[in-house]
Amino acid sequence: LSEPTRHPLEALLLDDRQHGASELARLCLKELAELVENDPASDPAVMRDGWQTLALRLRDVRPSMAPVRNLLERWVARSDALDASSADRLRAQAARAARDLIAESEEAVGTAAERAASLIGPGRTIITHSLSSTVLACFRRLAPDVRAIVTESRPPGEGRALARELSEIAIATDFITDQQLGVFTARADCALVGADTVAFDGTVINKAGTRLLALAARADAIPFYVCFEGLKRLDRPAAEVPLERHNPAELGGPELPHVTPRNVYFDRTAPELVSAWITEKGVVWAGDP
Amino acid sequence: LSEPTRHPLEALLLDDRQHGASELARLCLKELAELVENDPASDPAVMRDGWQTLALRLRDVRPSMAPVRNLLERWVARSDALDASSADRLRAQAARAARDLIAESEEAVGTAAERAASLIGPGRTIITHSLSSTVLACFRRLAPDVRAIVTESRPPGEGRALARELSEIAIATDFITDQQLGVFTARADCALVGADTVAFDGTVINKAGTRLLALAARADAIPFYVCFEGLKRLDRPAAEVPLERHNPAELGGPELPHVTPRNVYFDRTAPELVSAWITEKGVVWAGDP
Repeated sequence: LSEPTRHPLEALLLDDRQHGASELARLCLKELAELVENDPASDPAVMRDGWQTLALRLRDVRPSMAPVRNLLERWVARSDALDASSADRLRAQAARAARDLIAESEEAVGTAAERAASLIGPGRTIITHSLSSTVLACFRRLAPDVRAIVTESRPPGEGRALARELSEIAIATDFITDQQLGVFTARADCALVGADTVAFDGTVINKAGTRLLALAARADAIPFYVCFEGLKRLDRPAAEVPLERHNPAELGGPELPHVTPRNVYFDRTAPELVSAWITEKGVVWAGDP
Repeated sequence: LSEPTRHPLEALLLDDRQHGASELARLCLKELAELVENDPASDPAVMRDGWQTLALRLRDVRPSMAPVRNLLERWVARSDALDASSADRLRAQAARAARDLIAESEEAVGTAAERAASLIGPGRTIITHSLSSTVLACFRRLAPDVRAIVTESRPPGEGRALARELSEIAIATDFITDQQLGVFTARADCALVGADTVAFDGTVINKAGTRLLALAARADAIPFYVCFEGLKRLDRPAAEVPLERHNPAELGGPELPHVTPRNVYFDRTAPELVSAWITEKGVVWAGDP
């Protein structure tokens, strides 16, 4: 009964608990570019086939994260179109295609963050959950004239990494446990989160706890904004986007008879709770036609 | 700059993080009964005055917990009425008065739990937050034909103690972190919580996170029940019940410039989110006149 063979890139994707979906997708593509460049094979067609098979395997590793799927599928499509008459040239072009996609994604994140920053404006208190590189980019644009309320986001507690980043850019930050979300929304001017996936109907699939923030934001009449690059859109209904489960050992017990620790990593926030969806393409307000 | 002198009973009340409000109030009264019995003073009037002064100091130590206030005030009132002609007799009677109040409170908790158990009935899945002795008593009455979903409730994580209790009575229990509340309400038949205080208008002051459970329960169309002994009623508006803050060190950091860890222990759940208030006196349904 041997373990199924797992490619190092599959392991990287599967085990990561610190990066948001966009960052992780780009990290994966970066590693793929290096792998492609250093592929020792000599037959271009066989070589490309191997890369694409791997890319399509990686695509399905984090099903709650649309950018992983979308970026890898785009890369497969672009690599399909490349000239395969020379192995060296194919390697260089395929790696280039991956790096182009990374740059396009980074630019999209920057533009989306810029839009969020202009929409929110200076001097506000923003409450967020989990660690989103897009939300962090928005904070960078507003720093230091903005205040943050940041949750621990447990497990694994990536809110601590966000607090560290905000500390470094001198943003006054309140750090709270997740159970305090319903106390602190009333002290914020708006809620801002990233997304791992945004489904067809606008449902936001993001780190578990995001839905609680949206519910509390609505109850306290502050706007709830979602900021993400367009790659996070998935043309599927929300119910078809699986909510990833991870190892319950991350909770640190309890180990007791009859008791089952659960570790569902994502939740679904209904579009009715979203005030605006902010992407590099623009802002869609709730109620817009 | 000496520390202000703190009575051991004040310290007990102030530092406790494991007991619900009723249990803690009874524990305090039990200690008070022993202290009274062993008071070496000889003048009954002076002795009683000392006890009452201490009781009134203790009353204000946990302002988010109505039973602490109510039980201590009742004991002061009952001790006022006692015959002070003999020191021995006063000691015995005052201790007896404390133990009578404890017994009355325990009986009220049992009756409230019984009502909740009949209302919910067998074979259901109940989601709860924090550790309430009243909710635990309800689970005991339904065991083992009931399922539980229990949150960690961090800090300090008293949901782990609840999971242990439920494990011992063979109740199938899902243990989740607080951020997963919005995933798991949809898998429960009802939400049931205790209360530290129930304000004049029915607002529930309970462990932080309770409001999130109530919001998610409403969004997922499951009833949200609050079960508590009548002693938890406080004839004050909800906004006048302070939300206790505790030592942020309980969060385990982060210690960073510009970052302030916050540890607000309670939140307020609006009466609009409550389906029924269950006490030893009966069940009040939302919308009842």
